[in-house]
Amino acid sequence: MPKMTIISLTTDFGLADGFVGIMKGVILRIAPHVRFVDLTHEIAPQDVRQAAYVLARAAPYFPAATIHLAVVDPGVGSARRPLLVTTERAAYVGPDNGIFSAALAEPGAQAWELDQPRFWLPQVSRTFHGRDIFAPVAAHFANGIPPEQLSREMVDPVRLAVAEPRRESDGSLSGEIVSLDRFGNLISNIPAAWAATGRWHCRIGGHDAPLMRTYADESSGALVGLIGSDGTVEIAVRNGNAAQQLGVGIGTPIELWTTE
Amino acid sequence: MPKMTIISLTTDFGLADGFVGIMKGVILRIAPHVRFVDLTHEIAPQDVRQAAYVLARAAPYFPAATIHLAVVDPGVGSARRPLLVTTERAAYVGPDNGIFSAALAEPGAQAWELDQPRFWLPQVSRTFHGRDIFAPVAAHFANGIPPEQLSREMVDPVRLAVAEPRRESDGSLSGEIVSLDRFGNLISNIPAAWAATGRWHCRIGGHDAPLMRTYADESSGALVGLIGSDGTVEIAVRNGNAAQQLGVGIGTPIELWTTE
Amino acid sequence: MPKMTIISLTTDFGLADGFVGIMKGVILRIAPHVRFVDLTHEIAPQDVRQAAYVLARAAPYFPAATIHLAVVDPGVGSARRPLLVTTERAAYVGPDNGIFSAALAEPGAQAWELDQPRFWLPQVSRTFHGRDIFAPVAAHFANGIPPEQLSREMVDPVRLAVAEPRRESDGSLSGEIVSLDRFGNLISNIPAAWAATGRWHCRIGGHDAPLMRTYADESSGALVGLIGSDGTVEIAVRNGNAAQQLGVGIGTPIELWTTE
Repeated sequence: MPKMTIISLTTDFGLADGFVGIMKGVILRIAPHVRFVDLTHEIAPQDVRQAAYVLARAAPYFPAATIHLAVVDPGVGSARRPLLVTTERAAYVGPDNGIFSAALAEPGAQAWELDQPRFWLPQVSRTFHGRDIFAPVAAHFANGIPPEQLSREMVDPVRLAVAEPRRESDGSLSGEIVSLDRFGNLISNIPAAWAATGRWHCRIGGHDAPLMRTYADESSGALVGLIGSDGTVEIAVRNGNAAQQLGVGIGTPIELWTTE
Repeated sequence: MPKMTIISLTTDFGLADGFVGIMKGVILRIAPHVRFVDLTHEIAPQDVRQAAYVLARAAPYFPAATIHLAVVDPGVGSARRPLLVTTERAAYVGPDNGIFSAALAEPGAQAWELDQPRFWLPQVSRTFHGRDIFAPVAAHFANGIPPEQLSREMVDPVRLAVAEPRRESDGSLSGEIVSLDRFGNLISNIPAAWAATGRWHCRIGGHDAPLMRTYADESSGALVGLIGSDGTVEIAVRNGNAAQQLGVGIGTPIELWTTE
Repeated sequence: MPKMTIISLTTDFGLADGFVGIMKGVILRIAPHVRFVDLTHEIAPQDVRQAAYVLARAAPYFPAATIHLAVVDPGVGSARRPLLVTTERAAYVGPDNGIFSAALAEPGAQAWELDQPRFWLPQVSRTFHGRDIFAPVAAHFANGIPPEQLSREMVDPVRLAVAEPRRESDGSLSGEIVSLDRFGNLISNIPAAWAATGRWHCRIGGHDAPLMRTYADESSGALVGLIGSDGTVEIAVRNGNAAQQLGVGIGTPIELWTTE
């Protein structure tokens, strides 16, 4: 296989302790040509679901043949398997705990269990497989070692259950908040396409907000629904923090209904 | 035009959500040769002035032909224009909201309005022009596409009003705190050159401090003025936090007077 | 000397102010081929000991000929010397304050005092030697300028006293907590090899915990000792935060004893 150049990194390690730098050092010793893009290292400790969300949102914007290394790993040291996922356009290396649920739904997805310790560091700790297993495997894969040498096919990788939005029988839409960003914007799982025509209203946490087409028309402080950058309905406060103002967060239900 | 290699990034996105990584992915798909230097992603949300300050301080230290991508964008989705600034030694891509005020004062500065959607992502969201417009334009510019193809000249880019220090008629100097760093040092806008000779004293927040030539002579805990690394007068507490100890911050007036 | 490619960076600058980006800009102007790996910029302000610890833990995982640039520098502007350390497999650039204590114990270690201002920025501030001295020297060294041109040999670099674990006469082991990570795990200085066989128990902060061989067998919330990724004994709470739960931290004594 040809060499791959870009490795993205997603962890819950934070940036204080140097663990991310250690993983990069390990990779560069094996594959000096690799270039890194940090996706985030601020996933809440052991929050596999958040990591899966952030990675699924970002991966489509990366060049083909990017290797996504993701280590949020509450099961480290247990029997949870180390995983490689290959798809038509990318590869994913990390623990088999659902963090790659979206990758497993990509065209051509194939799951592989990493079972060849000769591609790992000589000593494997019980608590830092990011350094000892996942980083060296990602590096060898970047060097062109094929999955068949690094691993064996597996058929039952872990997949996370996903909250699905619904179209109700009365024409309204039901969903929930699946993410919030640094600005306090509340990102729902309701596709913008479901509310593409007509006038729509949003209800969340006992508050109503119109679904706007043009964000900037609103006055400062107004609660509005809008089409977010993920292509779903988002709740925002212009020049303010919607999550704080409403006191709601991930998992909060949201409803949309139309008046025409 | 020749290819450019380095893109610096300045945003208020934080590092938790993966948005910076998404912009880098977008850039690498278009311009795989680009290398990134993160300037900061911890600008306070929507604080255009702080971003302008941090970028203006850093840009002179970068190699010629660096592209500075800066996205602090409270007006996203409104009529604010997307901007390219080219100067004799660098280029700047981001919103037209004053964030590039210092760049516009560089030799050879020319402002350009980005008006060619064929160099943007196919779908442009209302809330994330960093990903949809500014990142791809920076990448195409790095590939050598000239400003004339990406944009059209504009004559009235937004410029921030800058707090100017003053020499008073009694020989004293007046200015204000324009930045503070992680150590709590208070950075003023008074040029060190104005206090180059003689003995000077500083007054800030009701406290007096001598302007020192040699920081290290001071005992721990002493409040001192000194010549900061930005070439202006700075207020510091040796091995302490001046901002916390004085309870002052950005915008606080500072006065200097000489006793010889 | 051949060119060196990788520079790691360790500072207490934080990521908000752009100072790390400025150092990278300075380096790239001198040595455009260099690639960076950030180790951490979240060292507590002026905590030389923590920086020394994080760097010593990470350096062995980096490729040969890596240059480690570390700037935690409470003595900046005083008579503390600027330092280069070369060893058989790496180089280190930063202040002579003990931050490179581990490097000085590596095979072939040689200390050099940086005394050639022609390799520094033309203007050297009193407060930001990372930008003005250490970054440009690291870049020139990466370009192959030998230590003899950048500096002169020195014989008495500063070394930190290190807390040493002890084997007591009754067979028990004494040590202390030397680091804690983002998950609240308490990392001691007691080598795992000292407790390699038999059943061992840990006591810390008035609490007892068994030393486990298999972390994952424990139930959620249990306090356990385990072999950490640094090869020393660590205290952890499965799916919890040991430091918070015990109310202890760096410097807390820890004891191990065996019951067989």
